Parts: sequence; structure tokens; C-alpha cells
Amino acid sequence: MKIIEGGVTAAKGFMASGVEAGIKYENRKDMALVFTEKPAAAAGTFTTNAVKAAPVLWDQQIISKGAPVHAVVLNSGIANACTGAQGKEYNAGMAEAVAEACSVKTEEVLTASTGVIGMQLRMEPIRKGAVLLKEALSDKREAAKAAAEAIMTTDTAPKECAAVFEAQGREVHVGGMSKGSGMIHPNMATMLSVITTDARIGGGLLQETLRDVVGDTFNMISVDRDTSTNDTCLVLANGMSGVPEIKKGTKEYDDFKEALFAVARELAKQMAGDGEGCTKLLEVTVKHAAAVEEAKILSRSVISSNLVKAAVFGCDANWGRILCALGYSGASFDPERVDLYYRSEYGEIQVVKDGMDAAYSEEEATKILSSEKVAVTVDMKQGEAEATAWGCDLTYDYVKINGDYRS
Amino acid sequence: MKIIEGGVTAAKGFMASGVEAGIKYENRKDMALVFTEKPAAAAGTFTTNAVKAAPVLWDQQIISKGAPVHAVVLNSGIANACTGAQGKEYNAGMAEAVAEACSVKTEEVLTASTGVIGMQLRMEPIRKGAVLLKEALSDKREAAKAAAEAIMTTDTAPKECAAVFEAQGREVHVGGMSKGSGMIHPNMATMLSVITTDARIGGGLLQETLRDVVGDTFNMISVDRDTSTNDTCLVLANGMSGVPEIKKGTKEYDDFKEALFAVARELAKQMAGDGEGCTKLLEVTVKHAAAVEEAKILSRSVISSNLVKAAVFGCDANWGRILCALGYSGASFDPERVDLYYRSEYGEIQVVKDGMDAAYSEEEATKILSSEKVAVTVDMKQGEAEATAWGCDLTYDYVKINGDYRS
Repeated sequence: MKIIEGGVTAAKGFMASGVEAGIKYENRKDMALVFTEKPAAAAGTFTTNAVKAAPVLWDQQIISKGAPVHAVVLNSGIANACTGAQGKEYNAGMAEAVAEACSVKTEEVLTASTGVIGMQLRMEPIRKGAVLLKEALSDKREAAKAAAEAIMTTDTAPKECAAVFEAQGREVHVGGMSKGSGMIHPNMATMLSVITTDARIGGGLLQETLRDVVGDTFNMISVDRDTSTNDTCLVLANGMSGVPEIKKGTKEYDDFKEALFAVARELAKQMAGDGEGCTKLLEVTVKHAAAVEEAKILSRSVISSNLVKAAVFGCDANWGRILCALGYSGASFDPERVDLYYRSEYGEIQVVKDGMDAAYSEEEATKILSSEKVAVTVDMKQGEAEATAWGCDLTYDYVKINGDYRS
Repeated sequence: MKIIEGGVTAAKGFMASGVEAGIKYENRKDMALVFTEKPAAAAGTFTTNAVKAAPVLWDQQIISKGAPVHAVVLNSGIANACTGAQGKEYNAGMAEAVAEACSVKTEEVLTASTGVIGMQLRMEPIRKGAVLLKEALSDKREAAKAAAEAIMTTDTAPKECAAVFEAQGREVHVGGMSKGSGMIHPNMATMLSVITTDARIGGGLLQETLRDVVGDTFNMISVDRDTSTNDTCLVLANGMSGVPEIKKGTKEYDDFKEALFAVARELAKQMAGDGEGCTKLLEVTVKHAAAVEEAKILSRSVISSNLVKAAVFGCDANWGRILCALGYSGASFDPERVDLYYRSEYGEIQVVKDGMDAAYSEEEATKILSSEKVAVTVDMKQGEAEATAWGCDLTYDYVKINGDYRS
């Protein structure tokens, strides 16, 4: 398996487009389409928030039926959450407009929205956008990028990744896109991600695989501990690689899962590293924990702490806040065995030994923390389990962006 | 019952002092003492963080024995957390120094510390401070204030409150002090609070009463969702009001609990309103919830949300973030029944009706949100339960304070 340049059009038979529909703002791409001529098996994971956006409810219904799909239409600017019956109607209208333009059935079109909560979509730009999207569809690299750009809100860069592996002498591709970058604390999925693959795989197995992968990737990032109303991760598999159906327990399945994992993890890291207002990607690995679930809880607690995030912003090796965040995570452990290290391209330093100050150089630690990618390793010295979570620093710009997001 | 001017010396027989011991900084009060000549029944609630500071472990042991106590010594600057066996020794040394100075037993002295994690106390200033504290002891109003000032870290004002009620023709007092103002998301107690009373009440009943009261007061505030390693709330009852022992099920008990509740709630509100860097106190009341526990979970989720807090800072009536925070709280409810109101001294406005936009005036909402005290009322329209939580806004100064706290 190797990572390649590309996004949602890396897999054979997938086309994409991104256009300016004028959903909420002028002069920016705000509607995206991912399309496959050949019907695709689809899997999805969605927000666990009790307040679910209209497109989330729509997709859950379609995915649960297990029927193949042809398209995913996405818009930015308006989240279509807290919009009642009217919002559900508008969402169905969005699917219908795309279905008409692309000559497929409405129930073969998945939807996703991101933006302000509580505002209704207007159907005129949506209908206009659907036609533009159909016209712009292409399997080119640029088309994937246009789609990735069209789903951005406060993101500062589009997020894409693709991977390829060989099976039975043929290439199988997995490619995806996603968007952040606030209200990010995914639980079951992340704020809008679409992954495509030309592998042939049954919907049930695809769903099971996605759930596993999401648990170790998108669900391990946090920007602000706010689990969105719209979190959606979709995978479409159209089988066009020509490789026969991938079954569980085969080398092909392991390779496919590895590729899906690699793409999802890279997209997740891109989202964490582009968290609202952030200046640094923070990677926290908890190793030698008693169990994987504990390692996950511990690492997520650290990347979610405002105090840890602010200290990372200030390049302050204030490790007491990390110990504190481990301590209130809910996982049980012996605080007096914990070792802790900071690492970046500027070096590595141990700051805690057996739960206490390791008599390190503050100057050296500050230097290491001045990197744009800071890694923390926590050694629990308890067992064999390990997990990694990704977050970002808390900055003035986070406050600025979110003190004045709607205007 | 009425609230009166005062702090930990409001109750008869309690003396206090606050002095400059030079724990970490020069020229600021950093050591406090609360003392009662007559031994007092003591109760305490403590952090649930798995990483517990040395003074927390010390107090838990003393309180669990049920023996009477004479004093609480507190220091700011160094938290004495993550300090191992040496830290425990230094903490015992702090209790011992005060015991010697005040001619009581070491195990009759409770301790509390707040400040930087991972740094060892130095015993020289502690010993010097113990003597100064003893010399400065007084039952005057100013002495209580000096003690409240000495436990401040990033607090901008001391936090005190007192109440009085009448029982059998005599006055019974409850007075307390506390400190915030970061790493505040108490779970079982709050970051250092000492409450004194001249009521006579058994240790067991006092503990039970405190636990109840803390659950509705200190445990309902949050500044940054970080549960500290040092959270401690202590109550000392020396019986000097002259009123016979207060028993459960009597009017005297109800009055006592009401007074304790009033003092604890006021101290909790003062802490929330003085959260690090904050400009506003945010009060969130969830009413007509299915159960009290649900109402608590819902209200706490809203005051803990970074996105809600940043919107409040920006006077932005972005109610979608409140619905979102209700949704991911873990409580189950029907999002399409929720009503939501903002209120301050500038008026009241309904912004959500049945889970959707109530077509309100943004201008009016912004005006209401420009107050220093903003109240949000969420009507779940499900049952009869209600709960209130207190928090604050998320500001540039929070990031500033915590990006550079140790230097």
C-alpha cells in the first residue's frame, strides 16, 4: 500500500465537482458533488449528537437500507440543522435536484451540509448549483480538489488523501476528502468526509470496516470538544478496479483496510492540524496502557484539554496539565509510574519520570515545543496497549473566529 | 436565613489570617490559616481526579477518621501535586509547622495547596509563614479577607460569603471563602473552599449535607472543563453558637442546609464570574427536564462548550451552538420541543421555539448579551426537573493567561 497524490477521484469511475452556488456567500465554492456512473456500495458513520441535521437523518435512512448509491452532494454555508420539517424537505429537494441533473434516483443521492445551525437553505441556489455541478463533473485531479474546496468553512486548506494497493495484479484505489475545522470532537464520524474506492466490497463488510477505522482515526481527533450536529463520514465502493469482491479474512481485505485506515488517518490529522485558529498539530500517544480503550480515553483527554492546548500555544512545557488531564479522564492508573516525553523535529526530551519532574531543561523543552508539529508520548508502564489522538493548540484566533463567526 | 457581609470569621470562635510567606513569589500574600480554639467537626469533598495532590490525600485521611480538627492551612503558588513521597513529607511538614505554632496536634490541621503542578514546596518559607500566620490570627472581618486574598492565584478578586439564621433564639453563622479561577470543572468539590460555621452538628451529618450542597453548587460550575488535582471543599463546625446539636429532620437542620447552600452557591458563582480571562458570568438554567440528573447534565454541557463561551464573549446570539451542546451532552430529549431564551438587565428574548429559529431581532439579542451577567433559559418541555449551572465566556485573555502561566 502506498499513499499517492489525489482525492475523491483517485478511484476508478469516480467523478467530482465543486461550484459557486451562492448558498450563503458570493464568490466562493460552496457546493460539491461526488458521482459514480456505476452504482456503489455505501457505508457511513454519523454524529452521536441527539440534535441531528436533516442530511444526517436522510443518509442514515439510505445507508441502513443497504441499497447502492450514485452520488453525494454537499454544501457549505448552512448546516441545515435545527430546521424542522421544512429543513428535511429542503434536504430532500437538494437530493432530488442532483438526481434530476444526473439522471439517477433521488434515493441514490446522499447529502451532507456544514455551516450555520438554525438557518434554512434557499432552494433556488441549490437547484442552480445542482445543474452546475453536473456540468462540471470530471475524473481529473483538479475536480477532486474543487470539491474539497467547496466544502470548506473556516478551514484554511482543502483536505485530501489517496492510497493505492495491488490485488491480483490490479490496482485498487482509496481516495477521500474532508473538512474541519470548528465544532470538531467527532463521535462515530467526523464533520463531512467522503471517501471513494474502486474496490468491490459488500455494503455490510464496508460498514464494519469503516466503523473500525473511524474509531482509530476521525474519532481520535478534537479541536474544541464540541461534537457537531452534522458529522458524517461516507465511503462509496463502485468495484471498478476489476478485482473480484473483497472478502474478510483475505490478504486483499487486510490491504484494503490498511489503505482505508491510512487515508482516514491522514484526513483526520489534516483536520486536527487545521483546527480553527490553530498554529500547531498536537499528537498524543499513550503507550503501555492496560487496555486499548483506556489508552484512547487517556490520549483523547489530553488533546481535549483547554489548559494543555493553551500551554502548547505558548510553547510552555507545563506537563502538570497533561498529568491533570490524564487524571480526570476516567481511566484508572497509577500516577506515580507515568513517564512523559515531548518530541518534534527539534529533538526529544523527557519531562516526567515516575509521575514527577524529570529535571529537564526548560529552554530545550520550549525549543522543541516551538515546532508546528508537537508530539507527546505518555508511557503508563502498565500494559501493552497503545493509542494516538490528534488535536491542536488553543489560540487568540480560535476565540476571534468563534466570537464572531456568523457575521 | 439571610446573607451577610463576611467570610470565614463570620461564625463565632473562628479566626483567620493571610500572610506573605514567599512560597513562590515575593510581595504577595500566599499563605492562609483558618483556626478554631474549640475543636470542630469537619467534612470535606475532594477532586475525583486520579492524580491527587498531597494535601488532598492528607485531608481525606483525616476527614475519614471523623476526629475533630482545629485548623486549615492553605498556600498558593505551588500545588504540591505530582511531587511523590517528598511532596507528602513537605505537606505533613506544613501541617506540623502550623500545629506547633498554634499548640495543637499535627493531625488536627487540614491542608490545601494551589498553584503550579510538579514543583516541590520549600520548607523554609512554610515554617516562617506558619509563625506569621499564628501571630496574625484574628476574628475580625479583615482577617477573613486577608485569608481569602492569600489563596488567590489568577483570581482577580477574593471570594467570600456569609449567612446567618436564627435557631432557638440564637444566631447561627455560616461563612466561607474560595478561589478559582482556572482548571475549574469541579467534580465532588471545588478548587479550595473553606466554610466555617458555629453550628453544632455531627461529622457524619455534616459530610452528608456538604455532599448534597456541593452537587448543586460547586459541581455546577466550569471555567475550562479541566478538573483539578487539588479540588478541596472543607467545612468546619465548632458548635460555638450555643444552639444544641442540629439533627436531621428538624427546622434547624433545614435552615442550616439552606444557609450552607446559599454560601456555597454564592462562592461558586463568584468563581465562575471570575474565571480566567473572562468578562461575563454565564448562568444556564434548564427547566422542565425529565429528571434532575438530566437537567444537570444538559446545563453543564452548555456552560462547558468552548463554542458557546466564545459566542457569549462576542455577544453573538448563536443559539445553534447551545442546541448542539445540549445534543451531545448524553441526555436524551426531543430537540424539536426545545425553547430557548436569553436574559440580562437589558431585557429578555426568545430565540428558539420548538427547536427552531424564533424569528427574533439579532440587534436586541446582541444588546442583551452585552451585559456582564447573561442568563440562558432552556425549556425542554418534557417534565418538571430543573437545574442551573454557571460558567463564563472564553476570551483572548484566557489564552494569554494559560499560554504563559508559569513564567
